[in-house]
Amino acid sequence: MHSFRVDLDRIFTGDRVAVARAISTVENELAGSEELLRAIYPRTGKSYRIGITGPPGAGKSTITNRLAQLYRKQGLKVGIIAVDPTSPFTGGALLGDRVRMTDVELDPDVFIRSMASRGSLGGLSKKAIEAADVLDAAGKDITILETVGVGQSELDIAGAADTTVVVLVPESGDSIQAMKAGLMEIADFFVLNKADRAGADQAVMSIKMILNFRKESAWVPDVLKSVASEGIGTTEIAATIAGHRSFLDKNGGLAQKRRKRMEDRIRELVVDRLRIDFWASERKALLRKKMDAVMKMHSTPYDVANELINDFRNHQSH
Amino acid sequence: MHSFRVDLDRIFTGDRVAVARAISTVENELAGSEELLRAIYPRTGKSYRIGITGPPGAGKSTITNRLAQLYRKQGLKVGIIAVDPTSPFTGGALLGDRVRMTDVELDPDVFIRSMASRGSLGGLSKKAIEAADVLDAAGKDITILETVGVGQSELDIAGAADTTVVVLVPESGDSIQAMKAGLMEIADFFVLNKADRAGADQAVMSIKMILNFRKESAWVPDVLKSVASEGIGTTEIAATIAGHRSFLDKNGGLAQKRRKRMEDRIRELVVDRLRIDFWASERKALLRKKMDAVMKMHSTPYDVANELINDFRNHQSH
Repeated sequence: MHSFRVDLDRIFTGDRVAVARAISTVENELAGSEELLRAIYPRTGKSYRIGITGPPGAGKSTITNRLAQLYRKQGLKVGIIAVDPTSPFTGGALLGDRVRMTDVELDPDVFIRSMASRGSLGGLSKKAIEAADVLDAAGKDITILETVGVGQSELDIAGAADTTVVVLVPESGDSIQAMKAGLMEIADFFVLNKADRAGADQAVMSIKMILNFRKESAWVPDVLKSVASEGIGTTEIAATIAGHRSFLDKNGGLAQKRRKRMEDRIRELVVDRLRIDFWASERKALLRKKMDAVMKMHSTPYDVANELINDFRNHQSH
Repeated sequence: MHSFRVDLDRIFTGDRVAVARAISTVENELAGSEELLRAIYPRTGKSYRIGITGPPGAGKSTITNRLAQLYRKQGLKVGIIAVDPTSPFTGGALLGDRVRMTDVELDPDVFIRSMASRGSLGGLSKKAIEAADVLDAAGKDITILETVGVGQSELDIAGAADTTVVVLVPESGDSIQAMKAGLMEIADFFVLNKADRAGADQAVMSIKMILNFRKESAWVPDVLKSVASEGIGTTEIAATIAGHRSFLDKNGGLAQKRRKRMEDRIRELVVDRLRIDFWASERKALLRKKMDAVMKMHSTPYDVANELINDFRNHQSH
């Protein structure tokens, strides 16, 4: 217990080693993970969370990098969680990109953590959000969650931010179509990156057209243009984030958003725990035993589900 | 009860009205839905299920249409479930496309059902699979599940088929990247449609390159070319489906695939039912009550999840 306390204090002062270890603990669900999360929880809620998502190659990490530099110049501490197989932060890009990241990576007040998207997709959004909690408790003023917007899990992560930015490029017309459902709904605003390329204005137009189909609301998502590789547009992106933040602050939206997020988290925790309780070895064995009957049409999936639930109920009451 | 029996017999003889009503019953979770599914279950397992998925505009419904015509010429009865906002079957396309569908739509031995993807995303895959069960029990030899491959739910539907075909077009390089994770894994083979357009050969090459990263397995997914609007490639697609089917038949893969699918379904049924039981009004009220404490940092999401679970346990044992 004593060493645990010490680590907590070191997390709260932003000690890199302690923070890295804490994130590893939640990421790998090591012993003490829940105790840690419970202990840091009262220290969270101060960091502003920015979600940055979009198709691969849209320049999300270049924008993340530029924003981090800008916030550092304002004296803010920055945490970055990158869940993107194509992100330079997660090692997916070419050497040239990696080199460009170095100034941010070397800054002691920028903490970058990459999380693998492969293999652990199930609990990924939960873990990324818990990692953001650690950075929050560690005193980061800004936490950027960078994810590639392809799967539900990645969208969940970006959607768990206070402001969510969707980055597109002129060529992503096809992606816009494909990802309309998910991406359009979580975006607080859009950035059309690589806006020096042909088709930029048409792309902005078509995003705006799609936006017209969104439900009326007090906040109208904007579409900004940027050329992040040259640093063009970063100030406007940061200004729009700040604008959205003060919009949320004014109308109580931030508290509401965070409350909703916390409720969702409790619901997920409940489902996770129920699932673990439910699929104890006795129910796994029961399912295995019943599958032959289902395949031979002697029973149905509905009957087996009921039998399993009854078995669970009986065990609960003991 | 008597009228229920009568309906069942009419479903089994493939009566269109009875089949349509049965699908509406499961789609809208009307009274008697589970009783119906339980009753038809022993009559399922005879229809071969083909999943067709891919990005919007790839020509999935044209291919579906062509395949349906081909199977009808072989004297097979065909069911189609279209879950795709851009599909002509679901009314998402231009009038020109709709007209082309007419010959299949007018055939009494082709049953087409479109299901809305908006609004009901949660239970969509469950409902589409249940609708496929109805068509199966109604004597359709072939059931085609056409879905746009953008969300997890749609991928789940296509993945719940015996053979899953992923349709791409030369322009979908961006989409291939974006959807690599999901689409590549469920594809039993690929169709590059609109293969008369520029870039077709390069697209085939890049799909093949991505396929090289897949795990070794006895079945190697092929990449076919088609121009479905002209009927080019349909015979090859049907032949590859047949080839995959006999591959599955030979090595016992079909039984294994279906057993796995049925297990997944039981697991989903269990989760659904547990969730409904769990979120009874008393737990909803408890969560609402505890949220203030969570937001004021007097409690944590972890503690509230535990309190809710304990409350559930106590109610179970009564």
